[in-house]
Amino acid sequence: MRTAEQPAGDGGDKPWGEVTPEAARRLLVAAVEAFAERGYHATTTRDIAGRAGMSPAALYIHYKTKEELLHRISRIGHDRALALLTAAETGGGSASERLAEAVSAFVRWHAERHTTARVVQYELDALAPEHRVEIVKLRRESDAVVRRILADGVRDGEFDVPDLTGTTLAVLSLCIDVARWFNSRGHRTPDEVGALYADLVLRMVAAPRGGDPDRRPGQK
Amino acid sequence: MRTAEQPAGDGGDKPWGEVTPEAARRLLVAAVEAFAERGYHATTTRDIAGRAGMSPAALYIHYKTKEELLHRISRIGHDRALALLTAAETGGGSASERLAEAVSAFVRWHAERHTTARVVQYELDALAPEHRVEIVKLRRESDAVVRRILADGVRDGEFDVPDLTGTTLAVLSLCIDVARWFNSRGHRTPDEVGALYADLVLRMVAAPRGGDPDRRPGQK
Repeated sequence: MRTAEQPAGDGGDKPWGEVTPEAARRLLVAAVEAFAERGYHATTTRDIAGRAGMSPAALYIHYKTKEELLHRISRIGHDRALALLTAAETGGGSASERLAEAVSAFVRWHAERHTTARVVQYELDALAPEHRVEIVKLRRESDAVVRRILADGVRDGEFDVPDLTGTTLAVLSLCIDVARWFNSRGHRTPDEVGALYADLVLRMVAAPRGGDPDRRPGQK
Repeated sequence: MRTAEQPAGDGGDKPWGEVTPEAARRLLVAAVEAFAERGYHATTTRDIAGRAGMSPAALYIHYKTKEELLHRISRIGHDRALALLTAAETGGGSASERLAEAVSAFVRWHAERHTTARVVQYELDALAPEHRVEIVKLRRESDAVVRRILADGVRDGEFDVPDLTGTTLAVLSLCIDVARWFNSRGHRTPDEVGALYADLVLRMVAAPRGGDPDRRPGQK
């Protein structure tokens, strides 16, 4: 049902390459697949160990609980998303260029790593309270990056954004939902979706040409 | 964890008012809550009956399987979504007015009925193959409505949409993801989110002012 993810995107040559030792990495890959296919609550640590070709006892050496696996997945995923956005913000260029880079990189990640992204985005409620607090903090930092780029563009006259909070939410939401519909066997590559979305988002926030701030495109 | 849905939105005064008899309606409401909270695969018919204050045998009178409940939820949800979009398309006005109405109505439904919408949007893989085919057909019809409105706007010179398929997908995706983040206890009402999103989408597709089709807002 779920299609295999491409190895590229983070962690080097293979998914979750940043997780060591190899047994811990294999268990994480198995957990992502199981959570995406059946949901967190329907998955047991026994299922995960079985998928990784290991015994439940071998799993326990690396992860004490199923929630520890989810937290590890969520933490790595959110760290990566924030790093991509931060790189776009600090990479230089105009606000339009930084926004285009932020959107296309964020979209590419949600497309390339769509199975992981679904788990990261849809299983927040299953995190333990202290882990949820930590992850929500990372999500707020990602929001803040996009909001700062939008505010920079307004200040520089490139953007017209009457509702900064709502537009920040909409931009990130549009990108995140790529994980729901993206299909590796579909017609578009992650790069193509990233480029399309960067263009659509720039149009959403662009200041009107001709310097008439009272009339925006699409308004009557 | 999941917040109660508002009764309005479809089916009259109470959620799923179109489902009769009352016992069948109560079971459907219980199934939506259970699927949204724990996921389809982690939910048993016994869980659903218990939530509705009924016995497993009483559930069986109305629904032979858990999948039948999911199919019923998905079918009613998709019928409703298509009806809202069709009403916007056939309600008259310019393409911009019809698009604004389609987006705001679709967003309002995903906000007001966010728990239902999460089940409808995230559990497609759990449908039986013949039901999945039926639901995918309804989804294609919804896509087609938005695509026709966009094409009308291009024809009438209101919109500039270089990628009609990709933009249709992005517009619907933006609206659908409201179900993921919307919180009844949050700061925005469904109407407010609908109005914001209608404005953002019109900006995404608006033709440039001044009739220069080679340059779009945000492009360099």
